[in-house]
Amino acid sequence: MSKRIGRQTLALPSAPGIRSAASVVGKKEGEGPLKDGFDRISEDSYFGEESWEKAESSMLRQAFTLACGKAKLAPSSLDYVLAGDLLNQCVSSSFALRDSGVPHLGLYGACSTMAEGLVLGALLLDGGFAASVCAITGSHFCAAERQYRFPLEYGGQRTPSSQWTVTGAGAVILGRHGGRLRIPLVTPGRIVDAGITDPSNMGAAMAPAAYDTLSAHFADTGRTAKDYDAIFTGDLGALGHDLLETLFRDAGQELGPGYQDCGVLIYDPATQNVNAGGSGCGCSASVLCGHILPGMGRGLWKRVLFAATGALMSPTSAMQGESIPGICHAVVIERED
Amino acid sequence: MSKRIGRQTLALPSAPGIRSAASVVGKKEGEGPLKDGFDRISEDSYFGEESWEKAESSMLRQAFTLACGKAKLAPSSLDYVLAGDLLNQCVSSSFALRDSGVPHLGLYGACSTMAEGLVLGALLLDGGFAASVCAITGSHFCAAERQYRFPLEYGGQRTPSSQWTVTGAGAVILGRHGGRLRIPLVTPGRIVDAGITDPSNMGAAMAPAAYDTLSAHFADTGRTAKDYDAIFTGDLGALGHDLLETLFRDAGQELGPGYQDCGVLIYDPATQNVNAGGSGCGCSASVLCGHILPGMGRGLWKRVLFAATGALMSPTSAMQGESIPGICHAVVIERED
Repeated sequence: MSKRIGRQTLALPSAPGIRSAASVVGKKEGEGPLKDGFDRISEDSYFGEESWEKAESSMLRQAFTLACGKAKLAPSSLDYVLAGDLLNQCVSSSFALRDSGVPHLGLYGACSTMAEGLVLGALLLDGGFAASVCAITGSHFCAAERQYRFPLEYGGQRTPSSQWTVTGAGAVILGRHGGRLRIPLVTPGRIVDAGITDPSNMGAAMAPAAYDTLSAHFADTGRTAKDYDAIFTGDLGALGHDLLETLFRDAGQELGPGYQDCGVLIYDPATQNVNAGGSGCGCSASVLCGHILPGMGRGLWKRVLFAATGALMSPTSAMQGESIPGICHAVVIERED
Repeated sequence: MSKRIGRQTLALPSAPGIRSAASVVGKKEGEGPLKDGFDRISEDSYFGEESWEKAESSMLRQAFTLACGKAKLAPSSLDYVLAGDLLNQCVSSSFALRDSGVPHLGLYGACSTMAEGLVLGALLLDGGFAASVCAITGSHFCAAERQYRFPLEYGGQRTPSSQWTVTGAGAVILGRHGGRLRIPLVTPGRIVDAGITDPSNMGAAMAPAAYDTLSAHFADTGRTAKDYDAIFTGDLGALGHDLLETLFRDAGQELGPGYQDCGVLIYDPATQNVNAGGSGCGCSASVLCGHILPGMGRGLWKRVLFAATGALMSPTSAMQGESIPGICHAVVIERED
């Protein structure tokens, strides 16, 4: 039997449940509009560690431990961890989980990693391969800046289209049983390269991928944006958000007032000096765990489409003149009453 | 229903089949003991591209196209590509597949990536989520050297324990139907960190992870090494190969004469100056596609345990004094007569 609907959407008969979610963020994120939703806010950018890379690992470990605690699960009782991050060779997630004793499936989806983890985790549960899995990812502004851009001490200027890498981590525990929030449908995405070559304009590079996945999702399911109380892309930022609306408008469709972007939501553009908004694996992950899922729990939204986006480039590929391929994976989350 | 056997092994009732496999390697690999098995050998380390990173991408694209051709599948008819590599942000696999039009699930398992892709691909097929998927990965000596170690022009000395990154790519097309070679069992691995801090001794860092996964596989299934015509780890190299034998011997078990390592097989230690042997995502991938699977097709082995290993470190983590976590994912491949 195939669970395929249309071109690339999958229906999950068991609708795996979200048992718990946890978010840990940095000081700046803890001063933003979503501050009340995060489980833990660190005033220390080092999270008590000696380096920002180790801080990122520590933040991920904290999110993992918090999520397991909320689900009342011993970490070692998890069947799989699906984890990835932005650091070279995904070291922050690997080091965060090296002592977990849980079979580890490493992912690389750039800023789409949380959605990729939810997609694969839900499939492993629906396929009968697991009873509980954890999808986890995060990013750290300082570690990302020095890896991707310049040493912070250099004080490089940022273009208006640039985004601010979120210092944050999110962990979601999915279970075959339990949880009022369920995942009945997923739409894994294809790589879309629109030829954008400016690494300071990720929104423009990722918006076409978001359009490709969301339009496939709508075509596959016969749904429109109206069928969702909210659609969250992440992290297109302000420019990518508007570009995606334009792409749909040009195709004769409206995303409507329920469409928001994680990169726009996490900071206050008026006071936090983040240019086009937030980015990084930790952006959609912390917004999902600290804002979207808690909001669904409180009844703000009953049916949500979570569509995290990623830019699949590296400093080397940018220096070699390559354009920036984008990707977007979409996950439907519904509250059962 | 759960498909779990024991602690971490999964039985796949449908035993997904291997429809085709293809390998593309560089000049040095094409001069080694396995040269007759590779589909394509490039005399040009640039594969006609302007940079070694783009060469790695080109090599992956060639392997992908060859594997689809052998399976008589249009690339766009694949349900998923499971792809990863060693370059920062996995750019070689993302760029290789950006025009494929296939839903893309990015993986990071370091040199274990081919096994991770086979594990996830087999689960997606057995779960009814796909009809055909491609697992693909590769590495390039020159791109890896300048990213991980030194510019080639520097001519740095190599320690006896160091391994030589394979310039090679492998692509496997898995299908729910078809193929005499089937995957009935998989054992995804946990991260194991034995405290090794020498990046020039990956074999010692990965052997404990191989021991952890293989011993779990044996315990879960009630099998021993004798139940397999051949066991291939990869890429532990000569030192890691012997260390793994010692670890099992200390536990009162023997891996026996059928135990081999992809990193040992791919080069001739007497003439190719590779110290402890081959490594890199492309090592186990090209040995699987160019030696193991063709050998099984010819009847050399009927039941094989393929256990690719990865070292989950980065130059930054090594410079920050972190030890090197290892991981190993195991896949059972059987020939149906």
